[in-house]
Amino acid sequence: MKVLILGIDGYLGWPLALRLAKRGHEVIGIDNLYTRNAVKEVGSDSAFPLPDPEERVSFAKKILDVDITFYKADVKDFYKLHEIIQRHKPDAIVHFAEQRSAPYSMIDVDHANYTFINNLTSTINLIYSIIKVDPNVHILKMGTMGEYGTPNYDILERPFVEVEINGKKDKIPFPKWASSWYHWSKVYDSYNLLWANQVWGITITDIMQGPVYGTRTEEIIDDKLRTRFDFDEVWGTVVNRYCVEAVLGLPLTPYGKGGQTRGFISLEDSMQALTLLLENPPKQGEYRVVNQIHEVYSVMQIAQMVKEVGESLGMKINIQNVKNPRIEKEEHYYNVETNILPSLGFRPKKKMKDEIKFIIEDLIPFKSRLENFKRVVMPKTDWRKGRENK
Amino acid sequence: MKVLILGIDGYLGWPLALRLAKRGHEVIGIDNLYTRNAVKEVGSDSAFPLPDPEERVSFAKKILDVDITFYKADVKDFYKLHEIIQRHKPDAIVHFAEQRSAPYSMIDVDHANYTFINNLTSTINLIYSIIKVDPNVHILKMGTMGEYGTPNYDILERPFVEVEINGKKDKIPFPKWASSWYHWSKVYDSYNLLWANQVWGITITDIMQGPVYGTRTEEIIDDKLRTRFDFDEVWGTVVNRYCVEAVLGLPLTPYGKGGQTRGFISLEDSMQALTLLLENPPKQGEYRVVNQIHEVYSVMQIAQMVKEVGESLGMKINIQNVKNPRIEKEEHYYNVETNILPSLGFRPKKKMKDEIKFIIEDLIPFKSRLENFKRVVMPKTDWRKGRENK
Repeated sequence: MKVLILGIDGYLGWPLALRLAKRGHEVIGIDNLYTRNAVKEVGSDSAFPLPDPEERVSFAKKILDVDITFYKADVKDFYKLHEIIQRHKPDAIVHFAEQRSAPYSMIDVDHANYTFINNLTSTINLIYSIIKVDPNVHILKMGTMGEYGTPNYDILERPFVEVEINGKKDKIPFPKWASSWYHWSKVYDSYNLLWANQVWGITITDIMQGPVYGTRTEEIIDDKLRTRFDFDEVWGTVVNRYCVEAVLGLPLTPYGKGGQTRGFISLEDSMQALTLLLENPPKQGEYRVVNQIHEVYSVMQIAQMVKEVGESLGMKINIQNVKNPRIEKEEHYYNVETNILPSLGFRPKKKMKDEIKFIIEDLIPFKSRLENFKRVVMPKTDWRKGRENK
Repeated sequence: MKVLILGIDGYLGWPLALRLAKRGHEVIGIDNLYTRNAVKEVGSDSAFPLPDPEERVSFAKKILDVDITFYKADVKDFYKLHEIIQRHKPDAIVHFAEQRSAPYSMIDVDHANYTFINNLTSTINLIYSIIKVDPNVHILKMGTMGEYGTPNYDILERPFVEVEINGKKDKIPFPKWASSWYHWSKVYDSYNLLWANQVWGITITDIMQGPVYGTRTEEIIDDKLRTRFDFDEVWGTVVNRYCVEAVLGLPLTPYGKGGQTRGFISLEDSMQALTLLLENPPKQGEYRVVNQIHEVYSVMQIAQMVKEVGESLGMKINIQNVKNPRIEKEEHYYNVETNILPSLGFRPKKKMKDEIKFIIEDLIPFKSRLENFKRVVMPKTDWRKGRENK
């Protein structure tokens, strides 16, 4: 299979490239390296130093004996994207080329606009390129469980659902309620793809993924093959951040009461799931919605787990609940349908508690590097304060 | 009251400025004149020649003795918009600064992206400016009935509705299903404003308006005060286009079977409704959804009405159903709740059939001007054909 990965330089993009290449697929990737710069913009950096993309590709060749083709390009540039798609005629395109941080989108008006423009334009460009080249190319688009919010009903794996309003029934797109401009931009990309599916019959898997954590996959067998690892308050997600807080001797910082419950998945299991979805595409013209989560925890439970693991490694760890900068319910119903991945043979292999140990062990050698970024770990970007920023 | 109109140079913006100024309100307006150029881009022009904005303002002074302040500025430029809002501190802001043509958004990838970027950025900029200056400023935002599509349930005037999914109930944002990138951009602006309302408590009227038609308002008492009038396949809406087809001796062109049913409102009654909503704002922090339509007709009924009126004026008129370039149901349920405007005293004064006569009479003196644009009246922009265009 020939796979084009938009956003190949990212946390998921790079390990997916290694996984697919190692399984014998032809892998082409595009990245504009925006995330590298945007993480520096907020005063942070990847926990592991990153080789340049060209070096990455050559390390992959040397260490794993795989070929990956890399283009530095911006998916917002339709003509460039289209030229690459026409040249390679991929069977599947993985769309990770989105601004992926909720806090980043909430910094101020410029970051809000950047998020909408980048994410919507990249998806529209992909749609138009595909309908010209071949509407049967399978688009695997990274969505987020955050598109649904935390409703009192079950989160089903389907694009439409029938509801009754004032005594009359009709199907509607599955309801969404996001909690940041970033999350809204993902909702809009999902709707745009769903509409394009209805109009032009394009073939889509919309993966609604929970937060991913971890440092390892089966292919990351050398420091030179590591994927980026973000831990600051803007770019880091909860499990990874708490591990860095533990390593730095900072308190773990659940937001508010810490009752926010989400479905999580390890980096390794995310790779397993994405590979399964690519190797088992939906029917031509189908819009397949897949909820991709494994273990469900509240953030307080995660803090307790990191504390326990850290202490077993001889660390002293406190938990310090901080004022919630986000707009979210701190206690809520949460029930997520996950039938599709198991039906394709998905069997998660990693438990969060075991992975936390590996994350901490992998971070310890980089402790002095992490010390430089201590000040960007604690939460500062207050969702409600848009008005006080620029 | 002090009112800032974003998009003051448009079909609705200009007559609303005249109406509000004539009623003693202070009127400030912004426009980037994009529509003037974009209409020329597709080879068309306003049926009535338009004075420059500065001339418009001076004619308004001379003929109606009203003061209107005009800025040529782009609402996509946050800093410029914010400077104007800070300088004038309006009580209400009317947001018409959106790309407003569905066919335009469907021309190709560049027009799709332009529509999303322009419409979402202008609304985000407005939100951020308001939450800095004063979240109590009343935002009157032009939505469209097209955001709802043509569902089998009633279209209610409310931002949220309770539904049951798999036996569990929760409120969801009122469901929408758009039918072009333009309509989706309006859906997304509504959701962004609704979310901003929930987070920052801003005060909003979201007017879901049906297609507007007509050439006259009480203030347009001189050719020099006319508002623009579009009739080409990209920028013209159905009633206005059929009237031009009649004047040019072209067949009237319902799309497909012509069963598409919509709620319409005359330009004069639209002004009455908008003025009522501005003079009777919602409570501070309320999100008020208003369906602003008057008469409900199918497009075939409209074609028959134009034929009848035209023939009564001695014209020879044929109706010629053409292949529908749009993606829409040609027969469907359509029931729209309209309680809010009547409760504020809204009493529509115009009937479509009477107005059609005035439109045709107003157009006849411009017949030779219209002859120049004959070739852009018939539909060409095929929704499904995005792939064949650039």
